[in-house]
Amino acid sequence: MTVDELLHAGAVQQARAVAAGSPSAGGLLQAQRAAITRVNPAINAYVEVFEPSHAGALQGGGASPLAGSTFAVKDNIDVAGSPTRSGLAALDAAPATRDAGAVARLRAAGLVCLGKLNMHPVALGATNHNPDFGDCYNPLRAGYTPGGSSGGSGAAVAAGLCGIALGTDTMGSVRIPAAYCGVAGFKPSFGAVPSDGLVALAPMLDHIGILARRVEDLVQAFRIVGEPRYTQPAPPRDVRGLRLAVPAEPAALQAAPEVMQAFTAGLDRLRATGFTLVPVDLSGGTGFTAVRRAGLLLSEAELRNTLDAIVRERPRALPDDLRGMMEFIGKKSAADLARAVGVTVAAGQWLERTVAPFDALLLPTAPQTAFPMDAPVPANQADYTAPANMAGAPALSLPLPVPAGELPVGLQLVGHRGADMALLGIALAVEEALAR
Amino acid sequence: MTVDELLHAGAVQQARAVAAGSPSAGGLLQAQRAAITRVNPAINAYVEVFEPSHAGALQGGGASPLAGSTFAVKDNIDVAGSPTRSGLAALDAAPATRDAGAVARLRAAGLVCLGKLNMHPVALGATNHNPDFGDCYNPLRAGYTPGGSSGGSGAAVAAGLCGIALGTDTMGSVRIPAAYCGVAGFKPSFGAVPSDGLVALAPMLDHIGILARRVEDLVQAFRIVGEPRYTQPAPPRDVRGLRLAVPAEPAALQAAPEVMQAFTAGLDRLRATGFTLVPVDLSGGTGFTAVRRAGLLLSEAELRNTLDAIVRERPRALPDDLRGMMEFIGKKSAADLARAVGVTVAAGQWLERTVAPFDALLLPTAPQTAFPMDAPVPANQADYTAPANMAGAPALSLPLPVPAGELPVGLQLVGHRGADMALLGIALAVEEALAR
Repeated sequence: MTVDELLHAGAVQQARAVAAGSPSAGGLLQAQRAAITRVNPAINAYVEVFEPSHAGALQGGGASPLAGSTFAVKDNIDVAGSPTRSGLAALDAAPATRDAGAVARLRAAGLVCLGKLNMHPVALGATNHNPDFGDCYNPLRAGYTPGGSSGGSGAAVAAGLCGIALGTDTMGSVRIPAAYCGVAGFKPSFGAVPSDGLVALAPMLDHIGILARRVEDLVQAFRIVGEPRYTQPAPPRDVRGLRLAVPAEPAALQAAPEVMQAFTAGLDRLRATGFTLVPVDLSGGTGFTAVRRAGLLLSEAELRNTLDAIVRERPRALPDDLRGMMEFIGKKSAADLARAVGVTVAAGQWLERTVAPFDALLLPTAPQTAFPMDAPVPANQADYTAPANMAGAPALSLPLPVPAGELPVGLQLVGHRGADMALLGIALAVEEALAR
Repeated sequence: MTVDELLHAGAVQQARAVAAGSPSAGGLLQAQRAAITRVNPAINAYVEVFEPSHAGALQGGGASPLAGSTFAVKDNIDVAGSPTRSGLAALDAAPATRDAGAVARLRAAGLVCLGKLNMHPVALGATNHNPDFGDCYNPLRAGYTPGGSSGGSGAAVAAGLCGIALGTDTMGSVRIPAAYCGVAGFKPSFGAVPSDGLVALAPMLDHIGILARRVEDLVQAFRIVGEPRYTQPAPPRDVRGLRLAVPAEPAALQAAPEVMQAFTAGLDRLRATGFTLVPVDLSGGTGFTAVRRAGLLLSEAELRNTLDAIVRERPRALPDDLRGMMEFIGKKSAADLARAVGVTVAAGQWLERTVAPFDALLLPTAPQTAFPMDAPVPANQADYTAPANMAGAPALSLPLPVPAGELPVGLQLVGHRGADMALLGIALAVEEALAR
């Protein structure tokens, strides 16, 4: 494998190569930087690339399974010395004085931090259209969205511009770009990753997550950034006897035909390799749309506080859609928000009850594939992903096989809150089965 | 043991006696009804006592460790055929058409449902002063509060008027009356007990819980009403090597002297019996007061929706304090409530981080003991209990030894979300150690 090929391999594989001395850590890093310089102008995944000194090159030294690989960080998570702008220039952020906990843990494990990644403004939206820092594009098709809000994270990982990326996921913002960009994305259990140094969007629902090219990279990265209660024991490799729930009426999901086709074919392949898939009724909840809207209201209300000075003093500094949302939420009462909290909590309980009898629930990650950046934005992008945030349950997206040249489709696995390693174990087995 | 003495024994002990045929199930039930007739007028714990036919006497038949014993239900939980008034006459509730899930499970396990229990109006308050259904009193001292909001549950269990009682706990409403009445009270993990048939107060924080005279009764009742993921495996009996966190600066809790004395003496006894107690710093959170206030705001906003028709059409039908709260919350915005949600979430995360390195955290349950019903109401009653609701963590109160004739003091144990049986196992061992 050449060094350039290694940039598209998994982070664990990169770390192994560095550990074996071929290439050296410095050699991999140099190639990585060259790739960013070459590729980033077309996709705008990075909004800031750190100088080698800032990045801590050659300072890493932890003997973790990812030591020698690299990572990059969504712009709403603190990296010491860099302003945390959350995709919005008007925030006028001063440089962060310290690394977020997740960033510090990755550095301590010997990964080099390469830079800050583009995102949908203030993480509220899933296209990564960004008037302030420029749109981020999907490396798999020119002019298409990478998804969002962690669009830069999805694009950078898919383009081989970092080993792994940190993202955040309030209603699907890690899993949606992972699906659109054809990589793996993991939103751990609520509380499993320290949330210090994160710009809040909706604190009830906010999770720091990880994007990577391989599930084993997610496993190793999670063991580094996660709290010990969540990262023990090692993921089980034996998945015989597992029972995975699948939608009893897939048509009711109203997903695009290409999504349903890949999803159905993927489930067929899992059955053929020995998985037990059990149809479950998903119609008993409040409904995906109402649930997503409740999450949106929570996010808007919290943002109204975060952006208070800007809304009052210079609302024109906000992108049009965000300014509209701030006007909308400004008219809502505490009782209105309490109703949204109620819907949110009920959705989480519904999902927990639904998944309880099974080892995991399988869903498409998003109702559609990536679309042109200038196309109308589908309202339902986060419909399948938001409930896992409300349950605080671990959820993961990994790529389904699709015909050559077609856009990626994500398979979402939802597990039990607190049982992150069990879900990662299932994901390893599913990834392997789908690759056969 | 006479039948009347058996009424003050644990529910497991009652069930064992019935299983041995002495007394018969009918005999125990008859004595239980006679005790209610005799004692309830003085304490007003029951707001409705079911006729034998309604109660399902002699119909129970499940072979659970509690079969043959009895239970009663806080008035904000549905019992088929009885109106769920939530301590507020203005709710004009029609009889519930079906049992709440927790009620149905207890019946199926062979317990007889005796009636509905008094509570603080709409569960928002901790004195059980109730203008509509009459105040409920502490059976241990005339004219004193039993605590609340599950005051009827605490009083009925303490007076031997039921085997176990269901209560609800949004900021401490199971644990506070357990502490004031000298019984044990358990608030399981969020989601561990089905919440159908419950009048919502603050859905993020609402939990159905159990009050009983013995921890083993809580264990068996929880195994009946809890979801399987939470009730397996059996509680560990071997607690050697456990590390329990205790406040590094107990004085900072600002508890009443009699509470601190009982708490400190209790910890000394635990140390003497081999427990390892580790001081932890509790000053790092938002502060107990701010956290309790945020929970109050969430509750008020949700109640504003529940009581909407009453607030608009006949506000005078509400108790004065509740009407005042509804006026207050009516002026609050969605952004105000979002701030409270943020404080709530942060408090839960703080508690989870604090307890994470230990097997449990020990605290006084409340800053004071029961007080006269007509005395000023301390604002801080729920300060030590509310954070566990915000973390969704299991928490339990059991009585500390106090000098003869003194009012009870509760010891609170807080565990890890999802690890309910582990906490119950610790509670069994602590109860045993304190009884030595």
